[in-house]
Amino acid sequence: MQKDSTSSDSPVNHVGRVRHRKRPTEVPSDANKASETNLLINDRNKYKSMLIRTYSSIWMIGGFVLIIYMGHLYICAMIVVIQIFMAKELFNLLRRANEERQLPGFRLLNWHFFFTAMLFTYGRFLSRHLVNTVTSDSLLYKLVNGLIKYQMFICYFLYIAGFVWFILTLKKKMYKYQFSQYAWTHMILLMVFAQSSFTVANIFEGIFWFLLPASLIVINDIAAYFFGFFFGKTPLIKLSPKKTWEGFIGASVTTMISAFVLANVMGRFQWLTCPRKDLSTGWLQCDPGPLFKPEYYSLSGLVPQWFPWKEVAIMPVQWHALALGLFASIIAPFGGFFASGFKRAFKVKDFGDSIPGHGGITDRMDCQMVMAVFAYTYYQSFVMSQNFSVEMILEQILRNLTFEEQKILYEQLGNIFHERQLMQT
Amino acid sequence: MQKDSTSSDSPVNHVGRVRHRKRPTEVPSDANKASETNLLINDRNKYKSMLIRTYSSIWMIGGFVLIIYMGHLYICAMIVVIQIFMAKELFNLLRRANEERQLPGFRLLNWHFFFTAMLFTYGRFLSRHLVNTVTSDSLLYKLVNGLIKYQMFICYFLYIAGFVWFILTLKKKMYKYQFSQYAWTHMILLMVFAQSSFTVANIFEGIFWFLLPASLIVINDIAAYFFGFFFGKTPLIKLSPKKTWEGFIGASVTTMISAFVLANVMGRFQWLTCPRKDLSTGWLQCDPGPLFKPEYYSLSGLVPQWFPWKEVAIMPVQWHALALGLFASIIAPFGGFFASGFKRAFKVKDFGDSIPGHGGITDRMDCQMVMAVFAYTYYQSFVMSQNFSVEMILEQILRNLTFEEQKILYEQLGNIFHERQLMQT
Repeated sequence: MQKDSTSSDSPVNHVGRVRHRKRPTEVPSDANKASETNLLINDRNKYKSMLIRTYSSIWMIGGFVLIIYMGHLYICAMIVVIQIFMAKELFNLLRRANEERQLPGFRLLNWHFFFTAMLFTYGRFLSRHLVNTVTSDSLLYKLVNGLIKYQMFICYFLYIAGFVWFILTLKKKMYKYQFSQYAWTHMILLMVFAQSSFTVANIFEGIFWFLLPASLIVINDIAAYFFGFFFGKTPLIKLSPKKTWEGFIGASVTTMISAFVLANVMGRFQWLTCPRKDLSTGWLQCDPGPLFKPEYYSLSGLVPQWFPWKEVAIMPVQWHALALGLFASIIAPFGGFFASGFKRAFKVKDFGDSIPGHGGITDRMDCQMVMAVFAYTYYQSFVMSQNFSVEMILEQILRNLTFEEQKILYEQLGNIFHERQLMQT
Repeated sequence: MQKDSTSSDSPVNHVGRVRHRKRPTEVPSDANKASETNLLINDRNKYKSMLIRTYSSIWMIGGFVLIIYMGHLYICAMIVVIQIFMAKELFNLLRRANEERQLPGFRLLNWHFFFTAMLFTYGRFLSRHLVNTVTSDSLLYKLVNGLIKYQMFICYFLYIAGFVWFILTLKKKMYKYQFSQYAWTHMILLMVFAQSSFTVANIFEGIFWFLLPASLIVINDIAAYFFGFFFGKTPLIKLSPKKTWEGFIGASVTTMISAFVLANVMGRFQWLTCPRKDLSTGWLQCDPGPLFKPEYYSLSGLVPQWFPWKEVAIMPVQWHALALGLFASIIAPFGGFFASGFKRAFKVKDFGDSIPGHGGITDRMDCQMVMAVFAYTYYQSFVMSQNFSVEMILEQILRNLTFEEQKILYEQLGNIFHERQLMQT
């Protein structure tokens, strides 16, 4: 499956989102006919590839907007599909066809680990939401409750089964290959599942917390591409020779401004800001909380008298958006550098060929992965912690505990209060 | 650091705990003087190595018992020390000296990830226990509380710092080596920290849940060694040529019996059965619960009249011990096979030379790792499961809510129960 060509200059199918503009002086003035024709063809190819890339980008963005509109469950389904494709691309990349033929069932084992990881990350999450959806007497309720209760054990059992399987299929002279495959399988699953489980968690906190970070990465990518295309001169990092400081800085500024503006726009839709507690796809209504309530800042003294706007309305969430924007433009690109380096190490141009003009799905997800985890930890540490309150714990109790357990908790709390009062008097 | 010799027949420094007994017919009757002398030396070496091994085993077990007596904190400290040694041995194993010299700061990066993982696994755990130990007004309390609150973010930040560092130090022509180092570092940390964090969790649930599984592995190891030594004939698995079916089966039976007996013995000590909620090392007293209360089974009809015992006392925990014993004897040895395969893949005889006669610490921990995770999941799923969530949420309530909020929560819960009852009638 490995491609031999590694020419990093090919404009097609490459991550390179920032590229040097060919300055006129660089065009050889003494070129002969052959090379001129060559250049022309190259140029035509370049524009053709840009067209293909733009075309599939538009389709992707369109599909994405539709899925956002359809709701949380569909977005999660999209994440899962992306996840499967990514795992497939990465598993393919590592595989060496000739060695694989001597190891029957080896790819199956990879997928066994994949689905074990899937059950581990989503099992508890889905079943918790399912418990709220089905009635408490049905068989399904008991089944799902059992899954919640023994999920960890089931996953451990499945993992150990794979582990034993791996050891029993070890073949002489292939040890090193098999062990490094084992390590890489774990690494891939770690990458793919860390990203996607955090993404899914973000989605249920409110689509806002998934959509804004994801959009910022896309905006930063596109902005870096165009700033690099028109102003790019100074190379940024050896790993990705097409990226320039001009692209990097221009994209950063664009991303920060976009973050501030987009947060305000997205913050107006309850569909995006409300958290989702169940697995239905119905309409959402909630009090989005103080984060999304505009605060008014007076502009008097800052603007001339004739200026029509005397004050601006800024939602507190916009300040958080700036933090996300900063990360998306400064740190997230390292996800792309990592992917570039990885591709160079394994001597491939792209992770796959799923998207015309873009390469594999993994090629488009490199920075998204880093961003999703950041968005999650940021949300959990700085946004949600403020609301950590009676309501949240109440929700936890009603969602995670069975009715019996809820009663036990209630009694225990009562006992504690009783003891306290005895101590005080 | 890699050793060239891989002779799997050397009796010294090898995991091989089951070995073929040399049957008399196998000794060449026509042997010349030279080979006889050789045999004699070999034999002397064999007994000398066995002596060294037994000697250091006794020291290890003695030290272990002392640490168990000293308490939870000291056991955890021992786990952390073992963890550091294991990581050191494994990092050393992967490193290629010549390539490393061109990559300054590379080992430092490995340790940076190690300590980030350390903060991630223990930070929250330790700080939770610390919060229970210090007074609620002190500065330390606020600091620790801050650590709990932002722990995830701090760890993520440290990880990303290491990630960026890794990318910035990527060197041309070394990509593949560096990336595979990166993957293996993650794999090693996963192995080492999964094991040790589960072990620490077990310890605080009661030393019993750490000591019994760990003892069973040791017993299984020793029993397999001796059964193999005296009765071993039929080879068990190609990966470890010295292991025999006789050793495997004999060890299984021994382990199951030991599990049943040991659980009864250990179950009598409150020092071992009580959970520990704080970080002190003081004496423990608790109601160990029904698990450790003997139930009496009548023997009438099963034994002859003259038999002095008319009934046996069995603690319910002994049945759980059988499950642990089954795992320790059937599945845990695969941890050893994995380690053997790994050593063969990387062409080393041992992971290190920390323990005279045993090899590295990792050589002694291979099965313990698999076992600790099993003991944890088993305990969580089948022993503790009923009180787990209630206790956890109760702890959250008492820690995170003010007294006023706790009262509001209690009232709201009461209201919800009241409403439910109205709906049902």
